[in-house]
Order: sequence, then C-alpha cells, then structure tokens
Amino acid sequence: AQTNVTIYGVADVGIQRIDTDTTSARWGLDSGIQSGSRLGFKGSEDLGGGLSAIFTLESGYNIDTGTSAQGGRLFGRQAFVGLSGGFGAVKFGRQYTPIFIAHDTIDPFGTGIVGDASGISATFNPYGVRMDNTVNYSLTAGPISGQVAYGFGEVAGSTSANRQIGASLGYANGPLTVVGAYHDQNGAGTTAASVDARTAFIGGVFDLRAVKLHAAFADNRAETTTGGATTLRNRDYMLGVSAPIGAGNVMASYARKDDRRAGIANADADFWAVGYTHNVSKRTNLYTSYSIIKNDPASTLGSGVAGSDISWFNVGVRHKF
Amino acid sequence: AQTNVTIYGVADVGIQRIDTDTTSARWGLDSGIQSGSRLGFKGSEDLGGGLSAIFTLESGYNIDTGTSAQGGRLFGRQAFVGLSGGFGAVKFGRQYTPIFIAHDTIDPFGTGIVGDASGISATFNPYGVRMDNTVNYSLTAGPISGQVAYGFGEVAGSTSANRQIGASLGYANGPLTVVGAYHDQNGAGTTAASVDARTAFIGGVFDLRAVKLHAAFADNRAETTTGGATTLRNRDYMLGVSAPIGAGNVMASYARKDDRRAGIANADADFWAVGYTHNVSKRTNLYTSYSIIKNDPASTLGSGVAGSDISWFNVGVRHKF
Amino acid sequence: AQTNVTIYGVADVGIQRIDTDTTSARWGLDSGIQSGSRLGFKGSEDLGGGLSAIFTLESGYNIDTGTSAQGGRLFGRQAFVGLSGGFGAVKFGRQYTPIFIAHDTIDPFGTGIVGDASGISATFNPYGVRMDNTVNYSLTAGPISGQVAYGFGEVAGSTSANRQIGASLGYANGPLTVVGAYHDQNGAGTTAASVDARTAFIGGVFDLRAVKLHAAFADNRAETTTGGATTLRNRDYMLGVSAPIGAGNVMASYARKDDRRAGIANADADFWAVGYTHNVSKRTNLYTSYSIIKNDPASTLGSGVAGSDISWFNVGVRHKF
Repeated sequence: AQTNVTIYGVADVGIQRIDTDTTSARWGLDSGIQSGSRLGFKGSEDLGGGLSAIFTLESGYNIDTGTSAQGGRLFGRQAFVGLSGGFGAVKFGRQYTPIFIAHDTIDPFGTGIVGDASGISATFNPYGVRMDNTVNYSLTAGPISGQVAYGFGEVAGSTSANRQIGASLGYANGPLTVVGAYHDQNGAGTTAASVDARTAFIGGVFDLRAVKLHAAFADNRAETTTGGATTLRNRDYMLGVSAPIGAGNVMASYARKDDRRAGIANADADFWAVGYTHNVSKRTNLYTSYSIIKNDPASTLGSGVAGSDISWFNVGVRHKF
Repeated sequence: AQTNVTIYGVADVGIQRIDTDTTSARWGLDSGIQSGSRLGFKGSEDLGGGLSAIFTLESGYNIDTGTSAQGGRLFGRQAFVGLSGGFGAVKFGRQYTPIFIAHDTIDPFGTGIVGDASGISATFNPYGVRMDNTVNYSLTAGPISGQVAYGFGEVAGSTSANRQIGASLGYANGPLTVVGAYHDQNGAGTTAASVDARTAFIGGVFDLRAVKLHAAFADNRAETTTGGATTLRNRDYMLGVSAPIGAGNVMASYARKDDRRAGIANADADFWAVGYTHNVSKRTNLYTSYSIIKNDPASTLGSGVAGSDISWFNVGVRHKF
Repeated sequence: AQTNVTIYGVADVGIQRIDTDTTSARWGLDSGIQSGSRLGFKGSEDLGGGLSAIFTLESGYNIDTGTSAQGGRLFGRQAFVGLSGGFGAVKFGRQYTPIFIAHDTIDPFGTGIVGDASGISATFNPYGVRMDNTVNYSLTAGPISGQVAYGFGEVAGSTSANRQIGASLGYANGPLTVVGAYHDQNGAGTTAASVDARTAFIGGVFDLRAVKLHAAFADNRAETTTGGATTLRNRDYMLGVSAPIGAGNVMASYARKDDRRAGIANADADFWAVGYTHNVSKRTNLYTSYSIIKNDPASTLGSGVAGSDISWFNVGVRHKF
C-alpha cells in the first residue's frame, strides 16, 4: 500500500557475560549491545523553495524480552517534527542532546558494543542521550556543523527550573574531525539554591588511513547556584584507536574519570576496552568486545558498589533494516 | 516490501503558555494541540459483492516526550475491524463515540487548537472521545448520515452495568450541516441505584461562503436510576464563526456552561477562543490560538481550582503523513 | 516509501459469553479469540551463499480496548533476529516455546477459538507460549523437522537458575503428522531445592481427507531437585476431529487432565469443545465455538474456583493482513 512513511530499524542481540568483584558472573542474551534495537518511522514533504517538513518517530525495544526500552516510552528514542532547508533544520520534540552526538562522533566504539553506556563514557555525558520538550536548530556549512538545543523545563512560574540548554560546534575536513559541545541542565527546584549541572566536552579524530586516533576530554560540574556545596566535579579523558582490517574494524580505548570534589579521595576510575566488528553484508555485522572498569575504593562506576570492578564480554550480531 | 497496510499519522507540536489565577504561567513544548499526534495502520480487503473487510489500528503519542497518549494504550486512539459495503459499515473494537464525532463536526476548531479538551467544550461530551468493547453501525445515504454504537459493560451478571449506548443523526446539504447526538452511560455498579449519565447534543454549521456560522447545544444529566440525588445537571451553549482567509482559516467561538444542579450556586463558566491556521502545503500547516475559561466562584473547569480562570496561548505546526 | 520491512497482522474480535457455576454470565466484546490480534514487522537480507539475515518484531494487542497484550510488552508476541540458510535457522530473542508450536500443530482448534488458553489445553504447556532470552535452532529436512531452544536464566552466579530448555521433533508425510516435544524450566532460586518443572508431549494428526483425527498426550511434573515434595504431577489427554465442509471447517475435541499428585484427590478436569470457521475470503473468516471445562471438586481449571465449571460461547471475525 502507498504511504508517505519509511520504516527502518535495528535488531541487535548478543550473548554477554557481566562480572563484578562482588557478585558472580551473569551470562545472558542482551539487546542492543552495539546499537540500541529500534523500529522507526520517518518521512518528509517537499514544501517548495528548498524547504521540507520532516518527522521521525523511533521506538526503542529490547529484543531479548520484547519490552520497550527508554522506560516504556512508545517512541522513546526520537520523536520530532520540523522544517529543513537551506537555513539548516529546526526540530521540535524529544531529541538527542548535542553533547551525546558529539561524543558519539568521537568515540571509537560509537558509544556502543563495550560496556560504556553504564560506564566511564557515560560520565562524559551525565545528562542522558536525549532531552524532552526540545527545540533544536542545526546547520552544516562546508566543513563546519553546529547545533543548539533548548529544552523547556515546563515548571509553572519559572522558565529556568528544569530547563536544559545544549550546543555543539564541529569541524570536519580531510583527515581531521573536531567537535566541541556544552550542556547545562537546571534542577527541578525553583529556588536559587537548586542544583545547576554543566559539562564542557571536546574531542577529535585524526584519520591516518591505516589507523584512526581518537581523543576526548570533558569537564563536569554540578553545584548550587548560590555558590554552595559542589555535588559533582570531575574531569574525563579518553584516548582511542580504530583500524579497518579487511571487512572488519578493530577498536580500543582507554578512559579515566578524575574525581575532583573537595574532601573526597580515591573516587577515580579507569576504563579499558577492545572490540571488533565484522561486516557480513551491507546491513548486517557481527561484533565482539571486552571492557573493564577499575574503580578506586570510593568509586562505584558501572558496578554500583564502591571499589568493585566490573567487566563485560560479548559476541553478537547487528542487523539494520 | 509489499504489504496490505497503509501507514498514516499526524505529528503536531507547539509552544504553549498555560496560565491560571492561582499559579504562575507555565511555558512548554506540547504535543497534539491542533490534532492529537498519532501513528496509524489501516487496510481493507475486497470480499466481492461490494463488501470489504476493513481495519484500523491507531496509536496516540506525545511528540514532546515520546510517550504513549491515552494512558499508555498501544492503539489508544482507534482499534477496530469490521465490514463495509452498501449496507453501511459495522465495526468492532475501540472507537469514537458518536457524540464526539458530532461535536467535532460542528466545532469551528474541530475540538482542537484551543484549550477546549480540558475546558468547556469537553462538557459537551463528558464521556470521552472513545469507547471500548464497542459495536458501531454507520450509514450515509445522500444527505443523511447516522450511526449507533453499543459498548459492552462486561460486568458478570449484568448486561446493563457499565454499558454505553450512543447514536447520532446528521443532515448535510448545500450550505447547511446539522447533527444531533445522544449518549447514555451506565455506572459500573450492578445495583439499581448506580449512576446513569445521559447527554443530548445538537449542533449546526451554516456556510455563507465568506464566513461559516457554528452553533451547538448540549443537555447533560447524571442521576441515580431510582430517582435519587442529581450529580450532574448542566446545559452547554456554543456560538462560533470561521472564515477562510487566503491560505488560512480564522476561527472564534464563545461557549457557556450553565450549571443547573439544585442547591449549587455560581458554578457556571464561560469560554472564549480565537485561532488561526495557515496552510504551508497540502499536508502541513501552522496554527496559533488564544482561549480562556472564566469560572464562576464554584466552578473548577479546566483549572481544577474553584473560581480560578485559566488561559492557553500557543503557536505550533501540524504535519500529516 | 521504499522499505526493507513487511507489515502484517491479525485483527480478531468476537462477542463472547463466559459463564461459571459461581458467578453470573458475562457478555463482552473480546479480542483475539481465534488468533491473538497482532501487528508485525519482518524482513530479510540476502547475505549470499544461500544465507539470509532475518528479523521479526510482533506486537500483541487487544482490539476491544487498544491496549497491549502480553503484559504491555511492545513486541510481546515475537522479537528476534537471526540467520537462515541450508543449515536451518538460528534465531535470538523472545520466541515461541517448541512445545507450544508442537501443541499448536496438533490441536484441531490451533489452540484458538475455544476457551482453551485458560483451560485444559494450557495444561499441556504450563510454560507459556513464549520464552525470553532465547537461542533457537530449527531445521526441516524432508519429512523431518526439529528445533531446540535454550533460554538464558540471567541469574548472577548461576547458569542453571531460571534457565529453560525446549526441543521438538516432528514427522510429516502423506496423511500422517507426528510431533514430540519436551520442555524443562528451572526455578529462579539458585539453591538445589529450587523447583524444576518438566513436560513431555506427543501428538499426531491423521488425515482421512473427509475428516482429520487429532490426538495428544502430555506428562507434566514439577518437583524440588533434591527429590522433595511434588508440586505438579499430571497427565493430559486430548482426542479431536476436524473436517472441511465447503468453505468452512468444523472441529471438536475432548481433553482430560488426570491429576496424579500424592495425597490430592478429585483434582481432575474434563474439557469439551466444538467449533466452526467459515472462510469469507482469502484473508477473512468468521468463527463460532462452544467449550466447557468440568472441574472435579478440587480442580480450579479455567474458573479459578475449586469445583466450579466454566464455559465459553463466541461468534467472531478474524481478518489477516
């Protein structure tokens, strides 16, 4: 039947072992290890004059159980409508945070495969992958690309409570890709003492053809707006390499969380990861990875238990449609 | 890939300010202001002899957060299968109430854009937009159209508890459209004292070409079936105008709820609304509106607070696909 | 719009009366009486060499209310990705249990239409229609077909807790179809005393052209793994017939649950069912059925009340798309 809609998606599943210092290993069949499993509907309408109306509705799901991802939201991955043209694109709805896209561009694993979603890499972006109630404007002009996003707080009597602002600016030319991003999220409270969290991110990829070099840095802080106690203060560093090998790609990265809160010691963490993807066809690939977070005695990253390390090992398949 | 299914939908989003007497204004990005955002699947099969099997499955969603509308139901807007032919159509499932369709036909705003879903217009139809467990029969013959709907109560031991009956009859010829509708919903209880709610609605549109005139009246009552205390008793009036202006349409309406319960004073409410839609293309339009409910001291309409007025202002875009 | 996805589904609705000894009859509009109402998305990619990547995502829904079936799971019916080729097919995700497919193949009603989902037929397969976190391998070679399934328990520190194993082996040649199946589900506990449930099933269909004869037998037991108390111990028997009549099919079956737990008397149950389906077209049919469970004084099958019988009568329509 004729329709204005394109259906697309990802079905990603793998066998995965998760092991921590404090519990015994858990083997399981897990969904979306390389790329979150999804089913999407999108389309566009030519409005003339180079302008188009565009929309995307994207469900996230867990293929191992058939449940919804993103806490049961029907279109929890993306839901927006907007206008696209020579001026760029302006989109309204639930959308990726600019800092997530920046991180995704730089990370050798594309923020997938290895256990980084709940690990050190997530510390590069404590605001989550997406933001609700958002107006996003983006533009690509030659080697320069950038976007700004404003997420309404929707709190009665305050236009600042719960509000989020994000932005990114990228440069891609020849072998060099550099992206900087910033995100600022206000607390839900309407008093001046409400927490304000901010992260600045910068990262780059340099393509030497035989191998790509990846690097990223983030500075995170959350504090009361009246200059009170600091609740979050850390710097994150990542170094990575990736290299094409025949029909595959091999990746490795090291990351470090440097906790800098006053009066808190031994809360740093280190993250190592290696992985390999192998293209079976244009739309299907196999993957495997191993990653580990080494927590300092006061750090709970990934494992949720102070000082407990956590590791992930997986073998899986990703099919795009 | 070949399929027997047509996919369609609406992506509607706007920036909206909601203000009441008792709380400060709230600004936000809201979904489905003009038309509820939806994604639908429908199809038909020719059975021969002019008969077709038809089905519709329609999800409602909030584009600002990606969540389901209609309380998380997967196909909360419509879900039915049925037969269509020269005899009319008989459909089984979750469907619009006939009184909603009647109201939607007459309202200059099509029950959208302005804040009427939670306002006075909703008092014209206190049964909700849809009914479950429903058999609906509809027929259009020349200028006459009508439908009857029966919703099973599904209460063991009673075929009347929780049961709904709805009907409508319309006439459309030349410049005149008139629709009458009736709805009767029994309470969930199986005793004779259970509440029985009934509404009679009549409305019309007269098209003067330069401008359309709209009018509607509803009489609502809910009472114990043994003639006990009256819990709901009000009459609603609406007058509206709409006019095409170039590629757009301008609309305005005034409505009044006249509360007639015995022993309750000052529970009336008034509703004013103005709006404008502008077609950008065949499937995309912009819209804006302002509406306000003025509550008498004992009325809580829209605001939920006795005597507190509430107003809505919005600017948005609706894209059909 | 072009897509790699095929959309398909079932919309099934009927008017049904359910009656038990202890409550009054309940009339209602029910979904999926013959075949669970569903909306599915599937596709495949040719990988060359006779190999294909395949996926299926299938939502179950209730057409009478628009809600999700399978407890609100988005793709609660099926969600898997896998590879298919000359070697058979290996699939990963949420999938049918092999014992369900075996039972579905043998049952004259295809486990639908009559009230057997909550009745005696369900005792043939107490593990449910589907299993999560599952790797399934299947192969058909001439008249022989078989499959094995392993469902990860995903309990930390144990590869046996909560684990499921299923298998089936079938033979279909000329008028004869025979299927045997086995299912073993461990309890969620990690101690040796955790319950272990097992069912062995065998069934067959013999096609005499004018009529088909159906028969099935299952042996169920659940016990502590250290040989402690027996919590489930019963044998199930089914005899059925089905016959094509013009554009329709008439079916009947008798089933019996023989409870064999030590120290428990009068917990058997009997099940009778008759039904008729009538094809209106290639994709649409009407159906009707009557079925009843006769519970012994200590049996609660279907009705949930000891000794209370329960019956179902329905008339409905099923539309495939």
